[in-house]
Amino acid sequence: MEDRIKEALKEIVGADNYTEQLIDMVSYSYDASEHHHRPTCGVWATTVEQISRILEMANRERIPVIPRGAGTGLSGMAVPARGGIVLDLNHMNRILQISIEDRLAIVQPGVVYADLERALAQHGFFFPPDPASGKVATLGGNVATNAGGVKGAKYGTTRDYVLGLQVVLPDGRVMRTGSHAMKSVSGYDLTRLFVGSEGTLGVVTEIILKINPKPTATSTSMATFDNLEDAGRAVSQIMHSGIIPSVLEILGRDTIRAINQNTDLNLPEVDAMLLAETDGYTQAETEYQMSKIMDIFRDNHPQQVQQAQSEAEAASLWKARKSAYAVLARIKTHFVLEDVTVPIGNVAALLKGVEEIAARHEIQIATFGHAGDGNLHPQILYDGYDPAEVKKMEAATADLFRLAIDLKGTLTGEHGIGLAKAPYMTLEHDAAAMEAMRNIKKLFDPNNILNPGKMALEG
Amino acid sequence: MEDRIKEALKEIVGADNYTEQLIDMVSYSYDASEHHHRPTCGVWATTVEQISRILEMANRERIPVIPRGAGTGLSGMAVPARGGIVLDLNHMNRILQISIEDRLAIVQPGVVYADLERALAQHGFFFPPDPASGKVATLGGNVATNAGGVKGAKYGTTRDYVLGLQVVLPDGRVMRTGSHAMKSVSGYDLTRLFVGSEGTLGVVTEIILKINPKPTATSTSMATFDNLEDAGRAVSQIMHSGIIPSVLEILGRDTIRAINQNTDLNLPEVDAMLLAETDGYTQAETEYQMSKIMDIFRDNHPQQVQQAQSEAEAASLWKARKSAYAVLARIKTHFVLEDVTVPIGNVAALLKGVEEIAARHEIQIATFGHAGDGNLHPQILYDGYDPAEVKKMEAATADLFRLAIDLKGTLTGEHGIGLAKAPYMTLEHDAAAMEAMRNIKKLFDPNNILNPGKMALEG
Repeated sequence: MEDRIKEALKEIVGADNYTEQLIDMVSYSYDASEHHHRPTCGVWATTVEQISRILEMANRERIPVIPRGAGTGLSGMAVPARGGIVLDLNHMNRILQISIEDRLAIVQPGVVYADLERALAQHGFFFPPDPASGKVATLGGNVATNAGGVKGAKYGTTRDYVLGLQVVLPDGRVMRTGSHAMKSVSGYDLTRLFVGSEGTLGVVTEIILKINPKPTATSTSMATFDNLEDAGRAVSQIMHSGIIPSVLEILGRDTIRAINQNTDLNLPEVDAMLLAETDGYTQAETEYQMSKIMDIFRDNHPQQVQQAQSEAEAASLWKARKSAYAVLARIKTHFVLEDVTVPIGNVAALLKGVEEIAARHEIQIATFGHAGDGNLHPQILYDGYDPAEVKKMEAATADLFRLAIDLKGTLTGEHGIGLAKAPYMTLEHDAAAMEAMRNIKKLFDPNNILNPGKMALEG
Repeated sequence: MEDRIKEALKEIVGADNYTEQLIDMVSYSYDASEHHHRPTCGVWATTVEQISRILEMANRERIPVIPRGAGTGLSGMAVPARGGIVLDLNHMNRILQISIEDRLAIVQPGVVYADLERALAQHGFFFPPDPASGKVATLGGNVATNAGGVKGAKYGTTRDYVLGLQVVLPDGRVMRTGSHAMKSVSGYDLTRLFVGSEGTLGVVTEIILKINPKPTATSTSMATFDNLEDAGRAVSQIMHSGIIPSVLEILGRDTIRAINQNTDLNLPEVDAMLLAETDGYTQAETEYQMSKIMDIFRDNHPQQVQQAQSEAEAASLWKARKSAYAVLARIKTHFVLEDVTVPIGNVAALLKGVEEIAARHEIQIATFGHAGDGNLHPQILYDGYDPAEVKKMEAATADLFRLAIDLKGTLTGEHGIGLAKAPYMTLEHDAAAMEAMRNIKKLFDPNNILNPGKMALEG
């Protein structure tokens, strides 16, 4: 990158908000995936005007710009695959407005999910998607990946809550999409075209979010099953039961075993554990729903069934699920956390298939995830310093994606495509859809400066 | 249109499924708006292959194609503004699959909303958007306008339930978007780009819909207010109360008066009436929510408050709301049903503004609509045979749109842009957004054959 570009960047954001120090470049080189690549420099932007000037110059000079929040993405979305300028949005972290009577919040992209949660909780409201990384992940990143979480079955994902955006386009123009209204069908849905677009179409600088009143009652239960088919049948029967649990999580055998090896939870080492939560405003409502779930658990040969009688007991039931990711991350030097999603009725088939893939490639895959919306997270554990293990991991990953698509599912429920899943896009999408996506990219970003190399958009 | 084109159409769909009879052309010339224009011919398509061949030819020959369902749209969306071929999809009316355990239904575009409702009801499920025209409107039309209804505040609109589509593109290629999974963030959100696109980007031939278990308990109440500000404050306070009513409808003074003149309901002729419904699985849950609403009604100087004690009483409270549209339609020779939507806290300001517009232009505007999501339907009543009245209607409409945008709202919450609101698109959308929409149209339909003349896409 020529010095005049660096000088121009310093002029735009101020020298204090420009960096090319090694420690920063290393930090910017990775996210929560296994991918990494260093940028040339980074800038902390604080205004729309700065972002507009940066993009206008980068577009003219054909320099990659990678918008970045907390870097908690799991698919390499924030990795500067082609180098360039990291546009760090963490300083744009103001909650601009919370309007309870309008049922919305307006935020800058660098606001951390948990900070919005705290601000909304004061009013008894919440922003439901609730990603597992919510304590550090930013809302701009949530929008970029259409983030979801454990409550997806009942409450959907980020997409269902974004009412409007302010976006800076690659040529520096500022565009508004959507409105402050709860409903709109005024022209094409540009808002949702940007949700999940992984920073490849524009830089989101303002987000208008629909918010929900927070349920005031919950019931929690857990069941273990010696047999995967029994757990799968229980999930299907819950879908038939006429209620939607606010949480329906599943832990597979390998996950349970790993938790036991690394905690003192002493779980029964069964094929599958299901964790269910129902919510509402009254205990009568949550108990009614939970009684349906408990009946179904009992009808399907559980090894054990337990309903929490207090908040402390509920927290204890949650412990296993909450420890899964971190426990599994410690077992081998490296891991890949996958995110395939299938029709809910195929959850058991997916789990079974994952076990077969693990056996076939002689690699450890531990699975947990959101049975209630079919979104499972097989975590592939391997030694990244051993080329043979890396090969196994890659082969298992490819098989996993093929399995998910064969089961009428998708490569990713909530983590995005990024670099990790880009090679598999054509498994899921037909030629016409791939061409449409690539043409949309060209339309908004003809010089391919925004987060280039992601989502197989270069065809 | 040359005879060889007509012959080719007959060859594709069969002579029995081709028409250029006057009675059909007149039927195809209008929808539920005030706009009309005759096509040259119409075809009933029954297969994706037929549609693909029709579009491929029309694209080559530069002939407009207007996809059409039940023609219940309120903004001229289905009117063949440039003539051409009406592609009637009513014969593609099969429910292809209902999978309760996968929580989805797959339908062809010509399935009538109510037919799907009946099929789902057997399983205790429903497809929540519930448009007022649901007894005749088709699901393809619901997708094309992102249809909503009285339950939008709690359940959202069609967009929130479309998981995937099969679409025939103008060049005849068939594209699949989305998947059978509840969640996906695999590439750009092509699915929602087509939802609300009014048949201008492609012809939807298959729809995968997320479905919900139907709540089994409801509570219903009604309150009347002498003063619009009191009603508006009640709506805002309900938003603050921590619950979301499943229904929160409002009727304005002129609507109430018209109902009294045309029915024997004998409503109090007040400034505003609110109708509220809460839902859940238990009576405890619906009563808890309703008690919050009733308290708020009582705190805001109601003229009358009433909670239904039986299903019959609930039905009676609904009568006024359900009669509004038809009663108002009878008062003058013509009417326009508008669809502006504002932030919920601005509902009272919108109603007040509508009254001022009516007074200023000396024209009758009666308003009702969905206070719970800020979506109001001012119905402008006028004599379409009197040029002076038509002018007043047009001036009032323009003022109404300006008012909605000034109140941070949108031109349309659920009826779409079509022909009726096309001239006002630039009021709401900035230059960058208009350009983006027009470029997307060009990308998918470079020869502008699909439903041309709508949504101000021609710039």
